[in-house]
Amino acid sequence: MPQISDKAIQMPESPIRKLVPFAEDAKDRGVNVFHLNIGQPDIKTPEVVMEAIKNIDRKVIEYSHSAGYESYREKLAAYYTNNNIPVSPEHIMITTGGSEALLFGMQVCLNPGDEVIIPEPFYANYNGFAAASGVNVKPITARIEDGFALPPAQDFEKLITAKTKAIVICNPANPTGYVYSREELEVLRDLVKKHDLFLFSDEVYREFCYGSTPFSVLNLEGIDENVIMIDSVSKRYSMCGARIGAIVTKNKSLMANALKFGQARLSPPTLGQIAGEAALDTPQSYFDEVQEEYQKRRDIVVERLNNIEGVICPKPKGAFYAIAQLPVDNADKFCQWLLEEFSHEGNTVMFAPAAGFYSTKGMGEQEIRIAYVLNENDLHKAMDCLEVALKQYNS
Amino acid sequence: MPQISDKAIQMPESPIRKLVPFAEDAKDRGVNVFHLNIGQPDIKTPEVVMEAIKNIDRKVIEYSHSAGYESYREKLAAYYTNNNIPVSPEHIMITTGGSEALLFGMQVCLNPGDEVIIPEPFYANYNGFAAASGVNVKPITARIEDGFALPPAQDFEKLITAKTKAIVICNPANPTGYVYSREELEVLRDLVKKHDLFLFSDEVYREFCYGSTPFSVLNLEGIDENVIMIDSVSKRYSMCGARIGAIVTKNKSLMANALKFGQARLSPPTLGQIAGEAALDTPQSYFDEVQEEYQKRRDIVVERLNNIEGVICPKPKGAFYAIAQLPVDNADKFCQWLLEEFSHEGNTVMFAPAAGFYSTKGMGEQEIRIAYVLNENDLHKAMDCLEVALKQYNS
Repeated sequence: MPQISDKAIQMPESPIRKLVPFAEDAKDRGVNVFHLNIGQPDIKTPEVVMEAIKNIDRKVIEYSHSAGYESYREKLAAYYTNNNIPVSPEHIMITTGGSEALLFGMQVCLNPGDEVIIPEPFYANYNGFAAASGVNVKPITARIEDGFALPPAQDFEKLITAKTKAIVICNPANPTGYVYSREELEVLRDLVKKHDLFLFSDEVYREFCYGSTPFSVLNLEGIDENVIMIDSVSKRYSMCGARIGAIVTKNKSLMANALKFGQARLSPPTLGQIAGEAALDTPQSYFDEVQEEYQKRRDIVVERLNNIEGVICPKPKGAFYAIAQLPVDNADKFCQWLLEEFSHEGNTVMFAPAAGFYSTKGMGEQEIRIAYVLNENDLHKAMDCLEVALKQYNS
Repeated sequence: MPQISDKAIQMPESPIRKLVPFAEDAKDRGVNVFHLNIGQPDIKTPEVVMEAIKNIDRKVIEYSHSAGYESYREKLAAYYTNNNIPVSPEHIMITTGGSEALLFGMQVCLNPGDEVIIPEPFYANYNGFAAASGVNVKPITARIEDGFALPPAQDFEKLITAKTKAIVICNPANPTGYVYSREELEVLRDLVKKHDLFLFSDEVYREFCYGSTPFSVLNLEGIDENVIMIDSVSKRYSMCGARIGAIVTKNKSLMANALKFGQARLSPPTLGQIAGEAALDTPQSYFDEVQEEYQKRRDIVVERLNNIEGVICPKPKGAFYAIAQLPVDNADKFCQWLLEEFSHEGNTVMFAPAAGFYSTKGMGEQEIRIAYVLNENDLHKAMDCLEVALKQYNS
């Protein structure tokens, strides 16, 4: 039997999905599971999107241009420009989700063996894209005591070597909900300029900010050649399954090379692009309602969590995630126990153990990531479960 | 300015798409261009597919399972079983096009620096997936004089080294239209068994065979652990833009590891999967008509080509491509000239120069690939253009 590649063996399993079999067993036993483990919102996809799909007027579902439909890129450029991020269609390549944008970005910017610095905890799949690209992740720890603010410049400086090629951030951040300030981003600007690094910024949660406007890396002056912004329609329009994202960069060489990877996979999904283009006509009222809803959910979750003895949860300013530290030795085991052994009034709750979002061994072992993607009522019931469970677990 | 990766620089441009700017210029001058350069069929997507999309009954376009919808994998397993390829849903992973299936397959089976043997001419994007995986392609030349039959076992043996990890074939083949016989596939079976290699078979053109039934590598006995079959809905249902494909393998370790790559990119496109699942209800009459149409087109193209002085074109038995040798020094220049300088009754024709389908430098320089994806009338006009053009070009 031929051997599987080393790369495949090193490829991490998803920490978000690895407890799924235990959740399935719980459901088989008749227990209702509140899924706060995954960023699959219950929010409806905008009506304009569903209408565009239902009214599709084509005889053939053809390939699009490898960079995506010109009409879509034009409308998307207008969307960014309206959001104070002035870009042109040629600065945009449509990708198969933000996932492909990140993968292409890493493959175009980093050689195998190169290093990328990422503040941890970070979106676990960055590990997957790095592994697929043969790139080494060098984590820099953002601490729960600091509310997950950007670590100071000197901490970055300590990690930068001749192999360092890029810094990757997520802003607003999954899994912490932290929103970087302009000042923090300017620290990163100075670092990438000084050390000639790429700056990847995953800004897929731009529309989910509570009480502040996020600042895009594309607005940082003097580093147009360094910046690659990653975007996606998945969360913004609650259409994760469309698999449509984008690379946005003013670096022409980066874009031309990314397009070669795009040509090899022919084109991004045509139906998803139709959905994505239609989504740009979503009325502002949709976002206002969604934002209000998430802010309410955040407030419930954060208040309930901090009212449980021994639980610490910094208030997130964006996205729809929060990291909480629990009074348990090992959150991994606790999350599994919640699914295997616990129920309260017929319910239990599924979280993502946060250790999988850290790259440094031993970090985050007491922490969980909570995706507050359920309605108020379910969130309260889920928090009831957690409260009762912690008492049982610790006694 | 930070440097682009070596991998990106090595990543080849698509030979199918590189003449596109010249075609655009020709159109700007008012010349009609017959596109025989790309496998984008003019055949309609089946009615059942378009109906399924129009009748979509969902409120949220959600992620699917990373391996694809269970219901889809079940129906797909039944489709294969009906086609005498008995497999179960757990042998199938749905991917974002055949492209992703090939990329995941290479990443899971080969380490950077490993070698893969591919009979040339071959689908040019195999170079792209190999480059993205850091894998070296070792071509083995199939000759136009032999109608592109499988080279003999001893030619493979000469190329096999300690670094060889896989053989990749396309059957029916893009770009030659060759369909491997059972005997040829048994030669490959013996080779991969003897040398403990993976055998990739890209069988996306299965439904396009003229006068024969293709034999799947999944039917080769005794090499279940070696075989990975690549499939796609793109050509079968004329829905290239759906971006839905599949990895089919009985190798459990290969499948489990491919799923980790699948988890990193979350899920294949949901809308495309709805289309793909619906497509499995396409009536046989659709395929009968399509096959009859393509057989007619093949016969026109092959007859017209072989009637032109100095042109040689072996008759393809499958897919919708043919390779023709032209009486020109350099088909690349000739194809560009067709777009830049030539027109006949307001028309010209675009082919893919075949050199880009060979990995050996200097091979195929007199050859073009023709995708006979247009209707009878247009094909005749395109062949008129070629006939007139060759006379002009050579005088």
